Amino acid sequence: MKTVFSPRHRGHANQLELMAGAIVPGFELPSRAEFIHDRILEVGLGDIVAPKDFDLSIAERVQAKDFLDFLPTVYPRWKELGREGTALAYTWPTRGLRGDVVPECLDGALGHYSFDAGCGFVEGTWDAIKSSHDVALTAAELVKEGAGSAYALCRPPGHHAGSNFMGGYCYINNAAVAAEYFRVNGAKRVSILDVDYHHGNGTQEIFYSRSDVQVINIHGDPNQEYPYFLGYKEETGAGEGEGFNINYPLRWGTDWAGWSQALKDGIQKLEAFGPDVVIVSLGVDTFEKDPISQFKLKTEDYPKIGALIKAIGKPTLFVQEGGYAVADIGVNAVGVLTGFEGA
Amino acid sequence: MKTVFSPRHRGHANQLELMAGAIVPGFELPSRAEFIHDRILEVGLGDIVAPKDFDLSIAERVQAKDFLDFLPTVYPRWKELGREGTALAYTWPTRGLRGDVVPECLDGALGHYSFDAGCGFVEGTWDAIKSSHDVALTAAELVKEGAGSAYALCRPPGHHAGSNFMGGYCYINNAAVAAEYFRVNGAKRVSILDVDYHHGNGTQEIFYSRSDVQVINIHGDPNQEYPYFLGYKEETGAGEGEGFNINYPLRWGTDWAGWSQALKDGIQKLEAFGPDVVIVSLGVDTFEKDPISQFKLKTEDYPKIGALIKAIGKPTLFVQEGGYAVADIGVNAVGVLTGFEGA
Ligand SMILES: [Zn+2]
Ligand SMILES: [Zn+2]
Repeated sequence: MKTVFSPRHRGHANQLELMAGAIVPGFELPSRAEFIHDRILEVGLGDIVAPKDFDLSIAERVQAKDFLDFLPTVYPRWKELGREGTALAYTWPTRGLRGDVVPECLDGALGHYSFDAGCGFVEGTWDAIKSSHDVALTAAELVKEGAGSAYALCRPPGHHAGSNFMGGYCYINNAAVAAEYFRVNGAKRVSILDVDYHHGNGTQEIFYSRSDVQVINIHGDPNQEYPYFLGYKEETGAGEGEGFNINYPLRWGTDWAGWSQALKDGIQKLEAFGPDVVIVSLGVDTFEKDPISQFKLKTEDYPKIGALIKAIGKPTLFVQEGGYAVADIGVNAVGVLTGFEGA
Repeated sequence: MKTVFSPRHRGHANQLELMAGAIVPGFELPSRAEFIHDRILEVGLGDIVAPKDFDLSIAERVQAKDFLDFLPTVYPRWKELGREGTALAYTWPTRGLRGDVVPECLDGALGHYSFDAGCGFVEGTWDAIKSSHDVALTAAELVKEGAGSAYALCRPPGHHAGSNFMGGYCYINNAAVAAEYFRVNGAKRVSILDVDYHHGNGTQEIFYSRSDVQVINIHGDPNQEYPYFLGYKEETGAGEGEGFNINYPLRWGTDWAGWSQALKDGIQKLEAFGPDVVIVSLGVDTFEKDPISQFKLKTEDYPKIGALIKAIGKPTLFVQEGGYAVADIGVNAVGVLTGFEGA
């Protein structure tokens, strides 16, 4: 399996985030992608190739143009205000406030386009976002052209970003853009299987009213876990999309037995849908030692995930999402891929 | 004019807030209330009395019971999680997320019930919130019993807090609770005149569909200024409340000439409404030296505000809201009150 990777992710570094009442160094570190990259070389998964440059025309079909236009402007505007460090919003349009106005000023616009203080910008953030988008589309193109499978080593991740908002370390929703790419290029149906520890709220939101993209999420129960406000079992889609969104919220402490049961059930529903292509939103923060998560998967479980996905027998694009135990992320993420390869 | 004041506000101290990408000491300092208290003594405004203890039955008519029940639990729950410092939310249910679920966990519930990271909790926060509520109702009772005017030296302030959310240093909306108190006790119509630099989004939201409480706001244009997502001119009320919400958003740099024109226009509309009682949400962060605001009012302007309000000729309750240039806040806030007294 080929991997697509760009060193431009490294510019998104030293960004800060708000957690438990403090501003802390972002858990979404450059070393995450480097550990995976190095593990791919170590096990000889296959060639690592650079992304092509894609324009945002596919992204604009799943995320609003005004939102995408805003992203590159954030850090220049932050600096114009005489500020340094990490650009973060500090107030958000929740219930009782208006979501239909984009304030002129940067602090207001940042709040408008986000839902947390976990999607900061530094100097290199936009370039990393764009490269991550290009990585996803380049890998999708490999699959479209018959590769059978490909791995988009995306950083930053994407699954928390929605139709016109960012959050949870995510800006452009790489998996959603890839799904739209497949649809535009002939696929009738696409399934997104999100195995990240956190609910992929952005992916759900983008496709919630569509019947052509099935979204399956296995994740920490939002009653207990970020992003808290989406990912409940009763969210099954709306309108034409009714029945095409499937959530498996699982409680803290879930181990392989409970987790794999949800995966097998999800795969049954995926097979019933009959997609032309499968996109896996691959987070490995389900790992027992992940610093911000509470599932109990072990390193030996990740190849089994890959094998179960391989058995579906569909062209498959893996898109990297979360996973924060940096020392283990390479082994676990690549474990899924080698499990898929049958290695 | 009598002042109602409680030293219990002092327990809400050393709380932190998120601003411009950093966690900083809260601008809403205990010294704010102490400077005003001392200035009242200095000028001999009148007696300073302690609040009575009120239950939350009036508050529950304007803010949801589940929200009010949540407030005292926040800091104990924060400590149960092994955390110290300031309890702050870190993710919020904006567009694309659900506002109809209250997650079981504290981080989720904190996000559900707030709209920013500027309403933190420390050990003494709930006690201060409750004392501030009692201060407002005790002063309202003085006015109800014929005092003509009274001053509620509330801290924390209230006008950003809405029907089921907190934010912007505000938890219980003291002015809204006082308005409801007057309605319950015989007033047919109440006007709230909010002269704080920031739009009183909570007060607007609470009364937006009601014709018995007129809400007039003079404030920094939300395109430029917190709270960004409410306070635009076209927000005039809804349903039965249509026409009873009046906003005067003013641009950065507005001085007495521009500001007083809005006040005079607002007072005309107030007089046309013909309230039985006037509540002034008294913020003095319109001051030229305020550290977080951009209007240009001078110390000599504050007595003129009081005189203009006095000329309305109605029973008047002053409720303290913002104002952050701590060395000047006493002179300016009390300047409004002495201007009202004709001193
Ligand atoms: Zn995750
Ligand atoms: Zn204010």
